[in-house]
Amino acid sequence: MNARMEQRNAGVAPAIATHYEQVRQHSVALAAPLSDEDCCAQSMPDASPIKWHLAHTTWFFETFILERFELNYQPHHPVFRVLFNSYYNGVGDKHARAQRGLLTRPSLAAVHDYRRDVDARLLEVLAQPMKAEQFAQLATLVGLGLQHEQQHQELMLTDVQHLLSCNPLMPAYREAPLRVRSSPAPMQWHSFDAGIVEIGHDGEGFCFDNELPRHRQFVEPYQLASRLVTNGEYLAFIEAGGYRDPSLWLSEGWDWVKREGLEHPLYWRQTEDGWCVFGLHGLQSLDVNAAATQISYFEADAYARWAGARLPTEAEWEHAARQGKGLQQLFGECWQWTSSSYAAYPGFQTAEGALGEYNGKFMANQYVLRGSSCATPEGHARVSYRNFFPATARWQFMGVRLAR
Amino acid sequence: MNARMEQRNAGVAPAIATHYEQVRQHSVALAAPLSDEDCCAQSMPDASPIKWHLAHTTWFFETFILERFELNYQPHHPVFRVLFNSYYNGVGDKHARAQRGLLTRPSLAAVHDYRRDVDARLLEVLAQPMKAEQFAQLATLVGLGLQHEQQHQELMLTDVQHLLSCNPLMPAYREAPLRVRSSPAPMQWHSFDAGIVEIGHDGEGFCFDNELPRHRQFVEPYQLASRLVTNGEYLAFIEAGGYRDPSLWLSEGWDWVKREGLEHPLYWRQTEDGWCVFGLHGLQSLDVNAAATQISYFEADAYARWAGARLPTEAEWEHAARQGKGLQQLFGECWQWTSSSYAAYPGFQTAEGALGEYNGKFMANQYVLRGSSCATPEGHARVSYRNFFPATARWQFMGVRLAR
Amino acid sequence: MNARMEQRNAGVAPAIATHYEQVRQHSVALAAPLSDEDCCAQSMPDASPIKWHLAHTTWFFETFILERFELNYQPHHPVFRVLFNSYYNGVGDKHARAQRGLLTRPSLAAVHDYRRDVDARLLEVLAQPMKAEQFAQLATLVGLGLQHEQQHQELMLTDVQHLLSCNPLMPAYREAPLRVRSSPAPMQWHSFDAGIVEIGHDGEGFCFDNELPRHRQFVEPYQLASRLVTNGEYLAFIEAGGYRDPSLWLSEGWDWVKREGLEHPLYWRQTEDGWCVFGLHGLQSLDVNAAATQISYFEADAYARWAGARLPTEAEWEHAARQGKGLQQLFGECWQWTSSSYAAYPGFQTAEGALGEYNGKFMANQYVLRGSSCATPEGHARVSYRNFFPATARWQFMGVRLAR
Amino acid sequence: MNARMEQRNAGVAPAIATHYEQVRQHSVALAAPLSDEDCCAQSMPDASPIKWHLAHTTWFFETFILERFELNYQPHHPVFRVLFNSYYNGVGDKHARAQRGLLTRPSLAAVHDYRRDVDARLLEVLAQPMKAEQFAQLATLVGLGLQHEQQHQELMLTDVQHLLSCNPLMPAYREAPLRVRSSPAPMQWHSFDAGIVEIGHDGEGFCFDNELPRHRQFVEPYQLASRLVTNGEYLAFIEAGGYRDPSLWLSEGWDWVKREGLEHPLYWRQTEDGWCVFGLHGLQSLDVNAAATQISYFEADAYARWAGARLPTEAEWEHAARQGKGLQQLFGECWQWTSSSYAAYPGFQTAEGALGEYNGKFMANQYVLRGSSCATPEGHARVSYRNFFPATARWQFMGVRLAR
Repeated sequence: MNARMEQRNAGVAPAIATHYEQVRQHSVALAAPLSDEDCCAQSMPDASPIKWHLAHTTWFFETFILERFELNYQPHHPVFRVLFNSYYNGVGDKHARAQRGLLTRPSLAAVHDYRRDVDARLLEVLAQPMKAEQFAQLATLVGLGLQHEQQHQELMLTDVQHLLSCNPLMPAYREAPLRVRSSPAPMQWHSFDAGIVEIGHDGEGFCFDNELPRHRQFVEPYQLASRLVTNGEYLAFIEAGGYRDPSLWLSEGWDWVKREGLEHPLYWRQTEDGWCVFGLHGLQSLDVNAAATQISYFEADAYARWAGARLPTEAEWEHAARQGKGLQQLFGECWQWTSSSYAAYPGFQTAEGALGEYNGKFMANQYVLRGSSCATPEGHARVSYRNFFPATARWQFMGVRLAR
Repeated sequence: MNARMEQRNAGVAPAIATHYEQVRQHSVALAAPLSDEDCCAQSMPDASPIKWHLAHTTWFFETFILERFELNYQPHHPVFRVLFNSYYNGVGDKHARAQRGLLTRPSLAAVHDYRRDVDARLLEVLAQPMKAEQFAQLATLVGLGLQHEQQHQELMLTDVQHLLSCNPLMPAYREAPLRVRSSPAPMQWHSFDAGIVEIGHDGEGFCFDNELPRHRQFVEPYQLASRLVTNGEYLAFIEAGGYRDPSLWLSEGWDWVKREGLEHPLYWRQTEDGWCVFGLHGLQSLDVNAAATQISYFEADAYARWAGARLPTEAEWEHAARQGKGLQQLFGECWQWTSSSYAAYPGFQTAEGALGEYNGKFMANQYVLRGSSCATPEGHARVSYRNFFPATARWQFMGVRLAR
Repeated sequence: MNARMEQRNAGVAPAIATHYEQVRQHSVALAAPLSDEDCCAQSMPDASPIKWHLAHTTWFFETFILERFELNYQPHHPVFRVLFNSYYNGVGDKHARAQRGLLTRPSLAAVHDYRRDVDARLLEVLAQPMKAEQFAQLATLVGLGLQHEQQHQELMLTDVQHLLSCNPLMPAYREAPLRVRSSPAPMQWHSFDAGIVEIGHDGEGFCFDNELPRHRQFVEPYQLASRLVTNGEYLAFIEAGGYRDPSLWLSEGWDWVKREGLEHPLYWRQTEDGWCVFGLHGLQSLDVNAAATQISYFEADAYARWAGARLPTEAEWEHAARQGKGLQQLFGECWQWTSSSYAAYPGFQTAEGALGEYNGKFMANQYVLRGSSCATPEGHARVSYRNFFPATARWQFMGVRLAR
Repeated sequence: MNARMEQRNAGVAPAIATHYEQVRQHSVALAAPLSDEDCCAQSMPDASPIKWHLAHTTWFFETFILERFELNYQPHHPVFRVLFNSYYNGVGDKHARAQRGLLTRPSLAAVHDYRRDVDARLLEVLAQPMKAEQFAQLATLVGLGLQHEQQHQELMLTDVQHLLSCNPLMPAYREAPLRVRSSPAPMQWHSFDAGIVEIGHDGEGFCFDNELPRHRQFVEPYQLASRLVTNGEYLAFIEAGGYRDPSLWLSEGWDWVKREGLEHPLYWRQTEDGWCVFGLHGLQSLDVNAAATQISYFEADAYARWAGARLPTEAEWEHAARQGKGLQQLFGECWQWTSSSYAAYPGFQTAEGALGEYNGKFMANQYVLRGSSCATPEGHARVSYRNFFPATARWQFMGVRLAR
């Protein structure tokens, strides 16, 4: 290694380290309002305990960075490799997903120790002199690990909301709402012409593999709503019998509505004082001006059909978002369902090894959401970002932007 | 009605009647080799008894044509409206799908009576004088009913194969195979350029609503295999450990393979004399030159990944098929999985009323298949035809054409 | 073999043969009103197709008698050994119970051929000269096979009733009811003293192994109702909210009632014309004087609690039945639930080999019923007879005699 | 109230108060080695979190005593009435059993507050002057509440063992085993004569309603093993293929063994170092001299059949235990399965109101166990005590004493 290489690393490494510490600290801060018990429980197989999120994001750095870059690497605890593996078959065995809530050991305190140990070791690795090529690999992996941790930061909030919603005491995660919402302007339709558009990440900054390659799609002329569907609008759908009319629903969605006996969104509650919504700040009266959220694909699609509209494709959404044109609530409110099934872009390549399992293997029977939500960490959103969930998922901050 | 109108109808009606009788007779012929018992049993909720197919296709004509066009319409039997409704919520109640095999009454003979009664009445309706506009509606509905019946004719074969496969006696539906297969030529890759292509039905002859509207899509450069994957090629995948390597599978597919303990396609059997396949003509030695069939989307996708290729999109398939270019086995062998999720074309419209439930409401969590199979009735296939099934379905004649 | 032995056999064998033919013929007669389709379908895993009953009872004679006693025994069909084995692990593999309705082959006609073949061969075996000891074994096994067939004759009726009840056409098995019922006398309590009683078969004639050995039990003083609970009495329980009051039910029974949404006995239907009951002769108005039947243990127990009484133990029932004392409807109406869990009598011995599986292995989580029903073949009932079913079973002719 | 009454209460109340505090304190001591997280998790619907046990036993005193005896009773927290109701329909709604592990709130600390509050108030009620009759009722209910708490103390240990067994870290509840076990003497058969025996509680001291009334039963001559079956003896059963031979099992048990893939008792683990057992003190080598424990009824019954013996009836067990005759390990080792289905004794009466739900409603599809275990609190066992569990339960300290 020559001196120049070391110099360059020395210039970048501190910035990476600072960013690393900020992102890592944010996870700890998100867990701070919660008790050890809150952090251990798992309310459904799709959600994970907060403690597990704290450990798994650490496992990611240990497994994919320390194991590769640390001299004389020794695991923090050999069993953690299995306990905190989420879905990477390439890494080996995994603790059963539905049993994460039974891991009362290691304790929350021990998981915080685990975080501190890995953090210290990772910062040491970052500070080591190494060849530029190797450092570039390291920096890329650290960047991926931090994006990964930010994804889990959003899940920490949605998972804890789900857990607390199962408790008849209806406890609040914290007092104040995440964001103050203002009254929306009247909904308007913005028009876009037909033509070949380019979608996918355009090469600057970080992106996940599923945002690549940037490629061409043809879109027919379309219109997009200027803002998201509000609670008040969604309430009109309910009151018009939306949950009782099969002609509004996809067949599989209707079977699901009947089987589960659904009559309203996940966190809506009909009380003596009218409609309320359970959120991170407890049970609150329904805000008719706020964007309707935590709504499944099947509900979003039925609402759109009832409203004489449809959901946008992801090409339409991304093309419009890149143009701006006065569209509101693209980011920071709630993720927006598209009608696009989650699939590989033409020429999509997965990484070698276990990291290739990050995104590609989930490309079946899920739908893409675009934008970002009130729970998305600052700096994590992108216009080319592809979030994805099954059509019945509804515990995330998911809402509806209409198209036609 | 003036004389000209009557004349025009009089010219077309006999041809429709002849076609009607031919298609209807074919269903009866398909059931002919089977006993009353064979026609009554249902081997799984996804499959229906032959007798139910015979009755449901008749119910379709009675409900959507006789009820509308017959003077003084009286139902053949009031309970049949419920018994033989498949999934039309707009028509009213339905007999539970999984319980179709319990309908030992009406008897097969009574169902044949039902067919003869509806046939006679429908032919009488066809022969009535009526206004041209009304006749056009009638002709359209009869055409739809016959296409519908042809779809069920294919299902009759695949459903009875599944039923007989559950019987340790391994009975044959009939002695000879459906088609004689010749040895395939070596597989070649055919190349196609990038560009805007048009897909969807182009306006001549019948099509289903889901093939409309014809519209533009952009395709990147791609290659398509000249023929389907053979049993011999698929066997190599099995022998290379294809069913034991999670890195080849979509995550949901891998969970399914493990949960069901899958090791080979649905009808393959490992016997003392080597690999055999159960088909409509009983258990036969595996023909390594025949196209691999009755393979799920998950298996097709895993095979393609193992082979260093992928499945085509439906736009790629249709564009290539319209050009020809020496592609073999496009039709008449087995349906070919595409990577395209079954979704509405831009501007897709459903029909008014219960017939609007025909296709649109199934546009979720299914994948499109293109081409046609050895079980597809003559004259039913089209280059724009969109067949669709869930990713785990594998009792249809479904195979693999590779793309890259 | 000396002449005397042969002579003795020769004296008994014809009587056995006659009895054999009568019992076997009765099964055929029970199936006569039904179509091939009716005989093939299976409405739930607990019930079997008529055709399967016809074949399984034949399999019993073939497996346990022909295989042992016939010279140069050849199976009628090698696969039948598996297809028509019910639950005898000692005999080998079994066709999956829930899949009996998929056996459209062998056809009903082929099963009747199977019966005729085995009947002819068995009668030939009976007519052969053999040693007395061997003949005694043969006679015992034939007797057991005929008792076994009579048990299945009752199941044929209850299983076909269940199948037909699943059909919205509500077809009748036959026109006339099985028995004409007369109005019951007012219910009276008959008293019995405490003391040591003997229960179990007393050595004359046939009995199953579970009726042995005859042994002593101590009973405290008790009273038994002179007749069974009527439909009218049971209706009063329903109208008093019996199905909505958890305090009347065993905990597991209450969970079952809520899970299944039960509000009345299995075959009761609330129609525009009031309460009706679906039976072997179709849908009929509720006869308030008839004994309530097709009632589960949980329902029987809840009714008894509501009526301020309880179910009798099997020792109480048998002791009372042996004394007579004017008890009505002991036999021929419906089986009567006892509070006794089905368990081995002290000193109970099972037979060697697969026949030892006949009764003993079912002695867990079932309750004993005593008496006999309208569907029990003539000559099959005994005062020591122990019928048994799980607490939720309710498709048999099961009713309630109160005790206190 | 006259002075004498007050005096009498004043004499007894302090002793009750002392006993109350001892028993209540023991529950707290049992939870002491565990973290907040350990106390919150629920490993299966049959088991409850430690915190829930601590709260439910407190709820019992609040609901059945404070609510009745306290002047101006106010609930500690109105929602606790629902959260900590186990199965008393008479008290009102219940939190879903399978969701107890989601109750991260109230915190463990808040539950300890709840305990202290109720304890203080109950001791105050005890100290109040009241009429003798009323005091007698109070004393009876306090006694019942303490017996109830002792039952839960045993469940706390078995439930926490199950939870810890689900954790790949295999944590110990505490270091030392509960009891030191000595090598057993050779097994001997003790004989008992036929005759009328009396079983049930005989009137001195506390008993549960299900131990009454004391009544007569007739027992045939029988023999009982002098000690429990050991791990070494059970291991011989496993090694002889006990889990693979259907002829040893009840039919329902065999279906269960196959469905679950069982090959050994719940907590046995085959390791590189041979057989180990997971217990409250972690994973330990199998002690071949210790009593085999945590064995289901189905396993106990199969073992007994394999050993040429059977399980005793509860009358046999109680009659023998009352006589002594040198029987070892009757108490304090593990509960002993009997072949007796859990049923009402002749003349059994339940209490009025919700407390009547304590025992009676569970008298279906469960089997009686006699004796007591290493986890049973001191002073809780009785010769007439009837423990009961379903035939598949195996996470309790349950073992086998043979009879014949």
